Amino acid sequence: MSDLKEINKVMEQSATAFAAYQKVSIENKALFLETIAQQIEGAGDALIAQASAETNLPAARLTGERGRTTMQLRMFAQMLREGSWVEASVDTAIPDKVPAKPDIRKLLLPLGPVVVFGASNFPFAYSTAGGDTASALAGGCSVVVKGHPAHIKTSTMVAEAIAAAIAICKMPQHVFQHVTDASFEAGKALVQDQNTTAVGFTGSYTGGKALYDYAAARKNPIPVFSEMGSTNPVIFLPDTLKNNAESLAKQYAGSITLGMGQFCTNPGLMIAMEGGELDQFLQMLSKEIAAIAPAKMLHAGIHTAYVSKMKNALDEKGVTVLSQSATAADDIEALPSVATVDGDTFLNDPLLHEEVFGPYSLLVKCKNIDQLKAVWRSLAGQLTTTLMGTDKDLSDFSDLMDIAPSIAGRIVFNGVPTGVEVCASMVHGGPFPASTDSRFTAVGINAVKRWVRPVCYQNCPDNLLPDALKAANPLGIWRMVNNEWMKG
Amino acid sequence: MSDLKEINKVMEQSATAFAAYQKVSIENKALFLETIAQQIEGAGDALIAQASAETNLPAARLTGERGRTTMQLRMFAQMLREGSWVEASVDTAIPDKVPAKPDIRKLLLPLGPVVVFGASNFPFAYSTAGGDTASALAGGCSVVVKGHPAHIKTSTMVAEAIAAAIAICKMPQHVFQHVTDASFEAGKALVQDQNTTAVGFTGSYTGGKALYDYAAARKNPIPVFSEMGSTNPVIFLPDTLKNNAESLAKQYAGSITLGMGQFCTNPGLMIAMEGGELDQFLQMLSKEIAAIAPAKMLHAGIHTAYVSKMKNALDEKGVTVLSQSATAADDIEALPSVATVDGDTFLNDPLLHEEVFGPYSLLVKCKNIDQLKAVWRSLAGQLTTTLMGTDKDLSDFSDLMDIAPSIAGRIVFNGVPTGVEVCASMVHGGPFPASTDSRFTAVGINAVKRWVRPVCYQNCPDNLLPDALKAANPLGIWRMVNNEWMKG
Repeated sequence: MSDLKEINKVMEQSATAFAAYQKVSIENKALFLETIAQQIEGAGDALIAQASAETNLPAARLTGERGRTTMQLRMFAQMLREGSWVEASVDTAIPDKVPAKPDIRKLLLPLGPVVVFGASNFPFAYSTAGGDTASALAGGCSVVVKGHPAHIKTSTMVAEAIAAAIAICKMPQHVFQHVTDASFEAGKALVQDQNTTAVGFTGSYTGGKALYDYAAARKNPIPVFSEMGSTNPVIFLPDTLKNNAESLAKQYAGSITLGMGQFCTNPGLMIAMEGGELDQFLQMLSKEIAAIAPAKMLHAGIHTAYVSKMKNALDEKGVTVLSQSATAADDIEALPSVATVDGDTFLNDPLLHEEVFGPYSLLVKCKNIDQLKAVWRSLAGQLTTTLMGTDKDLSDFSDLMDIAPSIAGRIVFNGVPTGVEVCASMVHGGPFPASTDSRFTAVGINAVKRWVRPVCYQNCPDNLLPDALKAANPLGIWRMVNNEWMKG
Repeated sequence: MSDLKEINKVMEQSATAFAAYQKVSIENKALFLETIAQQIEGAGDALIAQASAETNLPAARLTGERGRTTMQLRMFAQMLREGSWVEASVDTAIPDKVPAKPDIRKLLLPLGPVVVFGASNFPFAYSTAGGDTASALAGGCSVVVKGHPAHIKTSTMVAEAIAAAIAICKMPQHVFQHVTDASFEAGKALVQDQNTTAVGFTGSYTGGKALYDYAAARKNPIPVFSEMGSTNPVIFLPDTLKNNAESLAKQYAGSITLGMGQFCTNPGLMIAMEGGELDQFLQMLSKEIAAIAPAKMLHAGIHTAYVSKMKNALDEKGVTVLSQSATAADDIEALPSVATVDGDTFLNDPLLHEEVFGPYSLLVKCKNIDQLKAVWRSLAGQLTTTLMGTDKDLSDFSDLMDIAPSIAGRIVFNGVPTGVEVCASMVHGGPFPASTDSRFTAVGINAVKRWVRPVCYQNCPDNLLPDALKAANPLGIWRMVNNEWMKG
């Protein structure tokens, strides 16, 4: 009970800090984000060592992920300075219209305190100072992070880096807070608290959906963006299988086992049409998978879930193990595995549609293109879907392009879904259950749109308007003025 | 039971039409919207007469509302041709980056079939061919409207106009469908149907919240934008009360009783500080209200609710009737009424915070500016809030500007909240319960954002990209290219 009082106090502090943070200039918010990046970098090798100890991820991978995290923070600083993200819009008055048209000006303003639940598989980029926190702070929200129990020491070190940046930049003390209470009840209380205005989550379907349900059941529902599971279906078309089997096998064995399959964009499902080309590809993929050494997963819980979910899938009637790598040497090492099943069986077995989080992929052998389309369409919403095909393939099967956008938030051509580029055009999200709201992305500058709302001012005196809306456009930002984009 | 099968069939047809509608060119979608506008105009005086018979609204008002409706349809056609609404974004490849940066391009695509529940108080602008339908069709969605039972014949005539436009423009037959089943079960089934991807609603809190709850409880939740009740608090500051009492009284008596108070933006709550200026204003307002003739409300149900909710409010301890117009001559005529209450009582009586839909307004007399702020902050989310004040007032009480954005989607200065300008900068929405998602607006071109989601293409061959994303920018639209806005 005392813990829940603590949550209540944290959220009250967040609301107070939110109000104060509204007074901070855009440039100072940008400097704050950049200072967080510097402080995280300043934590040096000790931070990488701590993260590696808690996650079993190698130092090189973690160093890269930290670089991505600090790059994201700087990207949002740049977004603030560029300024068009506020979608400023100006409609000037037309007094002689009947009835008279008033002056109306609109921009995006922050929702309020945001609660962030980070992911176990990305201790930096999708956690404490990851995309949700960076985008919410950029949008003008205060942030409360519930540190992930699987890497709570790493999370605490990152939180300390943010606290140092708050002190250096003289930001409101509680604009960022870190909650280390690992309990389920604490998470629930954070979502239910009356000062919480939005929630960001990256992780399992069970966790993300529970938070969504708590938020929807509030007396005043609040938005939850949960990024949840995805099998990231990959379609292999016949001409590319025929011509590129060997390189495809190498590429996909690598993608399926990258980070021991612990990516939300891991290609857990492959779809192709039966035939000699496919058999040849499968032989090569089998060889590649068998050659990949088992490695430790993030923690025992994820390993147990992997073993159990894979066993459930492999036990299903009609599922054949194609290949599995050598026996594990350690209790929490995962065995990279690929299995196959025919299209009819897959279509009639919902269990096979479920994500097996880890280095596992199921290839569905379809009788023909119609069955391939049926399998693709039968899937729940996805983060990504991939088309592997030569120009001939993409021309022969051009109507696949009509289906693709309904499947996922990102459509990849002749590549692997693992690897999420951080850029303005990235969409990391997708139809439910890939996310709880397909209208937003968790990666790239548009991630900020989850935490802001439009507000318009009618006949407001110029001196009282936010700078973004003043007549002289003192920020020099792109705005829509009387239906035309301009920067003047 | 047969009715629910019918709903299922309607939604299946909508899904089929949605797929076909994706193939329709942008220009043909724009022409379709314009043809709907022409057909509604073509329905002529008969349509106005039918609407007036069903709603008791005068012909002049309905003619104006029809003009707003056809203007909205043409505005969305213009939006399609201008093209920047799709938020096209291009990040070109950087092959020598480590790891290589792929080519990523993003745009907004439609969600799928949208179900629209129109409002009883705006038989044209917020109903069958109103803002929800127009924005959804513009966004590329198919639409199913559940006609409002209070004006089902009007709704059917408008639906016939849309059907004629479908035939003229050779659109997919079921891209728009009209359901006349008035039952609660039909509405529920429409929201629960697996082919439904989003819902738009304008009306009461009870109705809008019920639809939100059905949508959130689906196995795959879908977005619901319900625009619900609002008391639209208006703050009167002392210097303007002192100097402009008479004109303010006339202006607000008109706004409170406009359309017999049956606007979602009706000023149902006024807040001011005690004093001689306020007493003088209240005397004048009282005189004005008493002089306004009672008139028929939309239908008996709304009248009964008005009488009962107003009685409940007036029966509360501490509430005093300031003024009421003459006795009603007809069973469903409403008596315009204004009451007062002190700040302490208001803060402790949740019933007084509730909307009384009709020509009624409650003025809260506050002891001082701190109590005025407390009253304002105590309110649930609003569509609008208004500040009435001279330059001196707005300077004396400048910290009110810090509070205003948290109250509502639209902040009005020295005007009335009734009247919602249709333009790009309009925000018609607000924090819950004004709407179920404050991140969107129901009026203006941005209303389309409720029905679309971002999709990105990674390393997609140029010929397979949507036109909005092709290298040559064949649509000539504004795009963000490598983080810079350009039209080249």
